[in-house]
Amino acid sequence: MTAAQSFLHAILAPDSIAIIGASTDPTKRGYTAILGLIQGGYQGRIYPVNPRAKEILGLPVYPSIEAIDGPVDMALICTPAASIPQILHDCGQKGVKGAVVLAAGFRETGASGRALEQELVAAAHASGVRVIGPNTSGMFNLHKRVNLLALTAVKPGGVGIISQSGNMLLALAMEAEHDGYIGFSTYVGPGNQSDVGFNDYLQYLGEDPGTQVAVLYVEGFSDGRKLLQVASQITPHKPVVIYKSGSTALGEKSAASHTGALTGSYAMTVDLLRQVGVTVVHRSDQILPVAQSLAKLQPARGKRIAIIADGGGQATIAADRIAEAGLELAELATTTRARLAEILFAQASLNNPVDVAGTSDANPEVMARCIEIVGADAGVDAVMLVGMFGGYHIRFDQSLLGSEIRCAAAMVEYAASCSKPLVVHSIYAERRPVALSLLRESGIPVHGSIENGVEVLRALSERGCFLASLPAQQASSVAQVQAQATAQQSLAQARQSGRDLLEFEAKDLLRVHGVPLADELVVRDDQHWDAVVQKFGTTPLVMKVVSKDILHKSDAGGVKLKLTGAAALQQAYEQIMQGARAYNAEAEVHGVLLAPMAHPGVEVIIGVVQDPIFGPVLMFGLGGVLVEVLKDVAFRAIPLSANDARSMLAQLAGRQILDGVRGQPPVDKDALVDLILKVAQVVQAYPEIAEVDLNPVLLYPDGYAVVDARIITRKD
Amino acid sequence: MTAAQSFLHAILAPDSIAIIGASTDPTKRGYTAILGLIQGGYQGRIYPVNPRAKEILGLPVYPSIEAIDGPVDMALICTPAASIPQILHDCGQKGVKGAVVLAAGFRETGASGRALEQELVAAAHASGVRVIGPNTSGMFNLHKRVNLLALTAVKPGGVGIISQSGNMLLALAMEAEHDGYIGFSTYVGPGNQSDVGFNDYLQYLGEDPGTQVAVLYVEGFSDGRKLLQVASQITPHKPVVIYKSGSTALGEKSAASHTGALTGSYAMTVDLLRQVGVTVVHRSDQILPVAQSLAKLQPARGKRIAIIADGGGQATIAADRIAEAGLELAELATTTRARLAEILFAQASLNNPVDVAGTSDANPEVMARCIEIVGADAGVDAVMLVGMFGGYHIRFDQSLLGSEIRCAAAMVEYAASCSKPLVVHSIYAERRPVALSLLRESGIPVHGSIENGVEVLRALSERGCFLASLPAQQASSVAQVQAQATAQQSLAQARQSGRDLLEFEAKDLLRVHGVPLADELVVRDDQHWDAVVQKFGTTPLVMKVVSKDILHKSDAGGVKLKLTGAAALQQAYEQIMQGARAYNAEAEVHGVLLAPMAHPGVEVIIGVVQDPIFGPVLMFGLGGVLVEVLKDVAFRAIPLSANDARSMLAQLAGRQILDGVRGQPPVDKDALVDLILKVAQVVQAYPEIAEVDLNPVLLYPDGYAVVDARIITRKD
Repeated sequence: MTAAQSFLHAILAPDSIAIIGASTDPTKRGYTAILGLIQGGYQGRIYPVNPRAKEILGLPVYPSIEAIDGPVDMALICTPAASIPQILHDCGQKGVKGAVVLAAGFRETGASGRALEQELVAAAHASGVRVIGPNTSGMFNLHKRVNLLALTAVKPGGVGIISQSGNMLLALAMEAEHDGYIGFSTYVGPGNQSDVGFNDYLQYLGEDPGTQVAVLYVEGFSDGRKLLQVASQITPHKPVVIYKSGSTALGEKSAASHTGALTGSYAMTVDLLRQVGVTVVHRSDQILPVAQSLAKLQPARGKRIAIIADGGGQATIAADRIAEAGLELAELATTTRARLAEILFAQASLNNPVDVAGTSDANPEVMARCIEIVGADAGVDAVMLVGMFGGYHIRFDQSLLGSEIRCAAAMVEYAASCSKPLVVHSIYAERRPVALSLLRESGIPVHGSIENGVEVLRALSERGCFLASLPAQQASSVAQVQAQATAQQSLAQARQSGRDLLEFEAKDLLRVHGVPLADELVVRDDQHWDAVVQKFGTTPLVMKVVSKDILHKSDAGGVKLKLTGAAALQQAYEQIMQGARAYNAEAEVHGVLLAPMAHPGVEVIIGVVQDPIFGPVLMFGLGGVLVEVLKDVAFRAIPLSANDARSMLAQLAGRQILDGVRGQPPVDKDALVDLILKVAQVVQAYPEIAEVDLNPVLLYPDGYAVVDARIITRKD
Repeated sequence: MTAAQSFLHAILAPDSIAIIGASTDPTKRGYTAILGLIQGGYQGRIYPVNPRAKEILGLPVYPSIEAIDGPVDMALICTPAASIPQILHDCGQKGVKGAVVLAAGFRETGASGRALEQELVAAAHASGVRVIGPNTSGMFNLHKRVNLLALTAVKPGGVGIISQSGNMLLALAMEAEHDGYIGFSTYVGPGNQSDVGFNDYLQYLGEDPGTQVAVLYVEGFSDGRKLLQVASQITPHKPVVIYKSGSTALGEKSAASHTGALTGSYAMTVDLLRQVGVTVVHRSDQILPVAQSLAKLQPARGKRIAIIADGGGQATIAADRIAEAGLELAELATTTRARLAEILFAQASLNNPVDVAGTSDANPEVMARCIEIVGADAGVDAVMLVGMFGGYHIRFDQSLLGSEIRCAAAMVEYAASCSKPLVVHSIYAERRPVALSLLRESGIPVHGSIENGVEVLRALSERGCFLASLPAQQASSVAQVQAQATAQQSLAQARQSGRDLLEFEAKDLLRVHGVPLADELVVRDDQHWDAVVQKFGTTPLVMKVVSKDILHKSDAGGVKLKLTGAAALQQAYEQIMQGARAYNAEAEVHGVLLAPMAHPGVEVIIGVVQDPIFGPVLMFGLGGVLVEVLKDVAFRAIPLSANDARSMLAQLAGRQILDGVRGQPPVDKDALVDLILKVAQVVQAYPEIAEVDLNPVLLYPDGYAVVDARIITRKD
């Protein structure tokens, strides 16, 4: 946690609140907000402001802001859009620190709204009043008993929420109410983010001691780069859960019609968020189960899950989902199995999934013993209980209730003393038997859905692996390269002529930074074939046209393959020059690039783009149709660590190709990781570089060949 | 529905039941079953049998089966395994039609258990008593008030269940209890299926008028071919929902430890089930939501979904999930948008997703109007309502309750009169407000999870498309080919020598059936190169060794490419013969096959395997790494229709490759479909064929080339 405290603490945990546009009409926000504050037991001062009312809900009403007889930390402004700039000035005079502006009618409505929003921002800056909104659903801080939404069903707890949809907040509140054990700390609807933005709220939740987990419902990021930076400061000590809507083209269309924010590719966004340790949830109905468990349970140090079940059906389902989630079934130690054998029936299955096969039917307490034994196995990172725990006394005999409760108590003790998480599923979850209430009251969530339980395990494991990788991440992320004079000159020249680097210039730039590239040669006329032959010997060569005016060399007949001997070179040269003229008579041709033909290898692509939201992003993927059709690629924000680079390889669906298929040996992954890192470092070292495209790179068991390289310069 | 009635009706809807091994101990099944029958209000006769008791739960106890003074339709046998064969004989004497055998201790326990199970089967056959089980959790038939499980929470309804896990039945029962509106017809646990099998139960559920949807929880199929046949007779008039556990290697391992059945590849199983119209559910927590909606709602005639929302958040989430599910957002007609504009606020979004943008906050009834308007659009196949319906009076003002209830009533009317399904989501689902209860009571399920609602839409759409395809399916599935004498001779000769067809024989067999293949030539010595040159002209040729003893031709240096001219042919021939001798000195070499080199094209693979569970299955996939690494393949059981074949193309993740990528023209899909059908028909025509492997087939804009063909003969 940084020492610097967010300015939002004073605003979101205010000691005094003015309600501007307070109302006597029970259907208006200017009324319900006051009701919410009173019913919520707010301990600070409440100042209703309305020139035409005397008293609302027993509180005296002030005719104006300046008439208020005490300091005001925060103002809730319920008046229409047009009135906001003046009110902000008045608030500034009064020393109000921040204002929650509910009114819509700003940039989301078109040109005049946009102008009004600019006025609002100017007023905020001039007055020194920070603005939450406009067009926000409001906020609450339940630990401070500030409930401007007048939601009656919410209770205080560790889940902090930022939601770009007020309805989603309502949905989460309803879900928490039904769960009964999920409570909230602070909620903010960022609205148009004219002044205070998403990242400010996230930083606040990161600092807020009442928030155990930060949950974000996001339709679009505006400053993604800053978000990654803020998130990366929070995730080492507090989980951050993000649901990003607009995951598909259709979804993006729908999100675009509701916010003004740009939306990047979903897959890229997910990769970048995970890179900084954010937990991305893909199903909206898993947001709270995952967030609550991240808040309450220990992260899992690895992926090895042990299942304890009282029947085959649920055990198999859990095992299926665990494999699909990229987790593993732990291999239980011989001693673990022996200890289980001592307490379970002979027909029990002692291999993971452990199936007690009826042992628990008359003796529920045996489940806690199984959990302790399996949890003590060094090869197990997390334990999942599936089946009918909590309902044995319902299913079999009421007399089992005592044993079930003792079992639950033992599980609570285990959870408190063990560093491994315990995830509990029960088909009786919705019946809420007392044993399950005991677990949940003690901070062990209970899932009625095996699928949700496994998603929780996935999140706990991902978080545990992220935390474990932090030391290596920090140690390896510092490598930088120094810009070199020759390369800088080359970039400067290109930018002066408003062009990108030529292929040989791009390769020279990489060479300067130690990227091993084959010796190549630029020939500017047809006088030197003997020298070429002397240099390359009998190696077959490729000849490519060098021209800033010919981007797609093949289309211009500008690439000739498998050339050997001076005569072939001469002929190819003439054909290329002819082709270039035919393609574009105006094209300035600098000559041809001669390079040895690369041996066949595994084709990959390494690229860097400047994402409008997230800044420089590196993409790695398998070449050909795998990139183009199946979009089998991985993204990381630059800068990236060796750890990040290595994780890109492991993420691809076709990763097996790197390990060798059809009898091929594995490629040189170390060299590949080096190349990825080098490309990222080069982009960092030269701000003049906008994009990089190494396509294809051919990977070998020993090293690689960069067949083509493009470096696009910044044109601004 | 077939006229032939399942023998199970008399057993699963019995007018009299004997409880053999009836007990006075309230923890024993011999007691709880009687309790369940009495509490359930069973109207038939109950005969407890126990030589050592006089009365149980007020009923007289019979000392033996023969002592019972009336006919017995069904016997529940609660005694241990060893007693079963004798009891079955006694039941046969009494004229009992079927017995439910709870005891475990048969083949699942090893050799002696297996012997006892054989005894049981022999006794069943000899006595004429059909056996449900052994090792079954039992059965219930709630319409007949037969509840041998003594489950108190279940209520009668349209969902019939066959579950290989008793715990899964219990889980579904708990879920139905919580839902409150899901009822069951008949449940059977098939147990070891020693006598009556899965397919018998499925046929029964298909015939049972009390069952609106058949739900199967399956760990492994024994006779998959028969299952497909039975299912294909049911699905045209009744939905069948299957959850297949063991979807992953890990899951398979766990399932294998609980059943003796073989488990095929999950992906293949799913394809084959869908081929016959079965709805496959992949998440266990979606089994009942999907089944209930299939039972209650109309199928959707297509994939075009309209979303009506009262807020952006849920609309976007629904749109995302709809796209991911392979469904589409319907394009609303101009007239539809105009009609919506008449009733909605100006800021409402009239494009799909329709967002009423506050119009409903004070006027919930507008939602029903929107549903009617959108549902009347010819471009819409199904309507999904998302948001807070049912909770407006909770969120805004109690006075809205009346409007909400009128709205719900209008929605019920719409659903009854419209042929398109209405899927309802509400964040208030768990609060159970009266408007939602009205919907649910009227057969419109309400989902608290958007994701589950969309999964329901996917199932309704898939079912609607299946039903719509039935006429075409039936018309196109009759094509057959007649076995030809030359091909039969070729197969017979090969089988006599215990070998498979040689490549040229396989190709000849395909040629005989009209598969267009390039002219090829088998040359048996090196005397005829001039004739070869004359035949093929200057076309470059490929030469391949022909030998039953050399399966992997390339490994033996047995393939030479790009040959032109007699000299090159002679040299290649010598090299191949040398290579063959070096590879296997004993190999019998028949000569070499000469064929024109195929032009580059899109590489695909077509294969047929004999699956031990499902019989002959055709596989189609994109060649190279797409098949090997990404497993991007589709399966269909043979026989298959043109419809089936075409759907295989559409199913591939890389299907875009068939439409042309990187500027390539699309391949000739009609020719490809013809080839797939021909291969399937050939396998049907020749029972001697075990497997076929066309790999690769190169696809062109006009036709294709079968580069290599293997036909494996049956060796039995």
